[in-house]
Amino acid sequence: MAVNKGDFIKLEFTGKIKETGEVFDTTSEEVAKDAGLQIKKTFGPIPIVVGGGHLIKGLDEAVTGMEEGEEKHIEIEPENAFGKRDPKLVQLIPMREFKKQGIKPYPGMVLTIEGHEGRVLNVSGGRVRVDFNHELAGKTLEYDVRVAEIITDDTEKVKSMIQLHYPSQNMDIDKTEVRIEDGTVTIYMDEMTKFDNRPYMDVTLARFRISRDIWQNMEGIKRVEFADVFEKKDEEVTEEEAEE
Amino acid sequence: MAVNKGDFIKLEFTGKIKETGEVFDTTSEEVAKDAGLQIKKTFGPIPIVVGGGHLIKGLDEAVTGMEEGEEKHIEIEPENAFGKRDPKLVQLIPMREFKKQGIKPYPGMVLTIEGHEGRVLNVSGGRVRVDFNHELAGKTLEYDVRVAEIITDDTEKVKSMIQLHYPSQNMDIDKTEVRIEDGTVTIYMDEMTKFDNRPYMDVTLARFRISRDIWQNMEGIKRVEFADVFEKKDEEVTEEEAEE
Repeated sequence: MAVNKGDFIKLEFTGKIKETGEVFDTTSEEVAKDAGLQIKKTFGPIPIVVGGGHLIKGLDEAVTGMEEGEEKHIEIEPENAFGKRDPKLVQLIPMREFKKQGIKPYPGMVLTIEGHEGRVLNVSGGRVRVDFNHELAGKTLEYDVRVAEIITDDTEKVKSMIQLHYPSQNMDIDKTEVRIEDGTVTIYMDEMTKFDNRPYMDVTLARFRISRDIWQNMEGIKRVEFADVFEKKDEEVTEEEAEE
Repeated sequence: MAVNKGDFIKLEFTGKIKETGEVFDTTSEEVAKDAGLQIKKTFGPIPIVVGGGHLIKGLDEAVTGMEEGEEKHIEIEPENAFGKRDPKLVQLIPMREFKKQGIKPYPGMVLTIEGHEGRVLNVSGGRVRVDFNHELAGKTLEYDVRVAEIITDDTEKVKSMIQLHYPSQNMDIDKTEVRIEDGTVTIYMDEMTKFDNRPYMDVTLARFRISRDIWQNMEGIKRVEFADVFEKKDEEVTEEEAEE
């Protein structure tokens, strides 16, 4: 069975910058360790929907047509990866702007200005050159990819999107219950997620993304419900216990 | 019909300190204005469950037995209100503790130390006297109360607890849908509450309180579900729109 657009799959990959051979992302803990990669994430195959915009364009296209278990080495040009470098995104910022905020810029420093992440290229003559291009813009990338699984079970499809969009160290996906009936998917998340400290709005946004990927890619689903259940226990739960 | 323990009612009240006649809380916007009360809240009758611990003990007891529409003037001793004053809760704190944090204490200043609110009584000899008793501890209170409504409809009972525990300026209670079936109450909150910025944990706590008041005081209810619904629209909603 070959991978088609709209399929829910689990993907393993390692991405390198062609020019330097530097590994910048991987789903393998071993590869990350060997490359000295400083990223905090859980490793293992990641769930995505093919053509769902979860991957860079070149990768999305490359997995289409692959068989379950198949491995592939691909090369992706900048235009199908993180785009070309835009010289206009390199900006000169007066040193005094940094001083005002008590920041001492140095080459390689990563900073966020008005929501945009940039890297300091150099500091000279009272001016700081900051590059707001994506770090991988202009780079040709090499990927080793493997289609670890094509997900066919509807419940597993739903769970895979929860794992993709709702990263939470507290969540145990096996404690999440999914019911599918009459075009409605009802999701009872692991109890622990109720005690998440992130703003409710962020939870809503994650839930919206899960829902959208479901109704766009699962035949006949028009509605997704997230249900938080509170049940009367035989022994009364005190508020203090609930707050723990 | 007289008010019983476990009844859902809407209450109007104005509370004064007997000794001084000072109004400290009221459900009437007019009274608050006249008294120059600096409290930010919505006015109008507040929904409570009698005996549910939502009121001070003396008030809870006083409303029991009142008729719908009845008004009453009552006097409540400290032990049935905010407790007696505890001299041990007045503490001397070295001035240097305040200096460390750049705080300049003055009599009447309200501050929170390790989660406890206190008021500065005086500052002298390098020491600051702070009173951690409740501001109304030791005070005999006078209340004018009126039972505005005894809520008999089950849906309205549920909605009243949402209003009590889930204060949100964005929420329109008329847009909240309640279904009661087979011992389960399912609540579909007003869409706008999804975009609340408070931590999800706080939402969970409010939901727990609503649920507990429901199953403790509504016959046959054992389960409360809060459902957040996401529906496929004919025109696709973009993420940007959803984030607005």
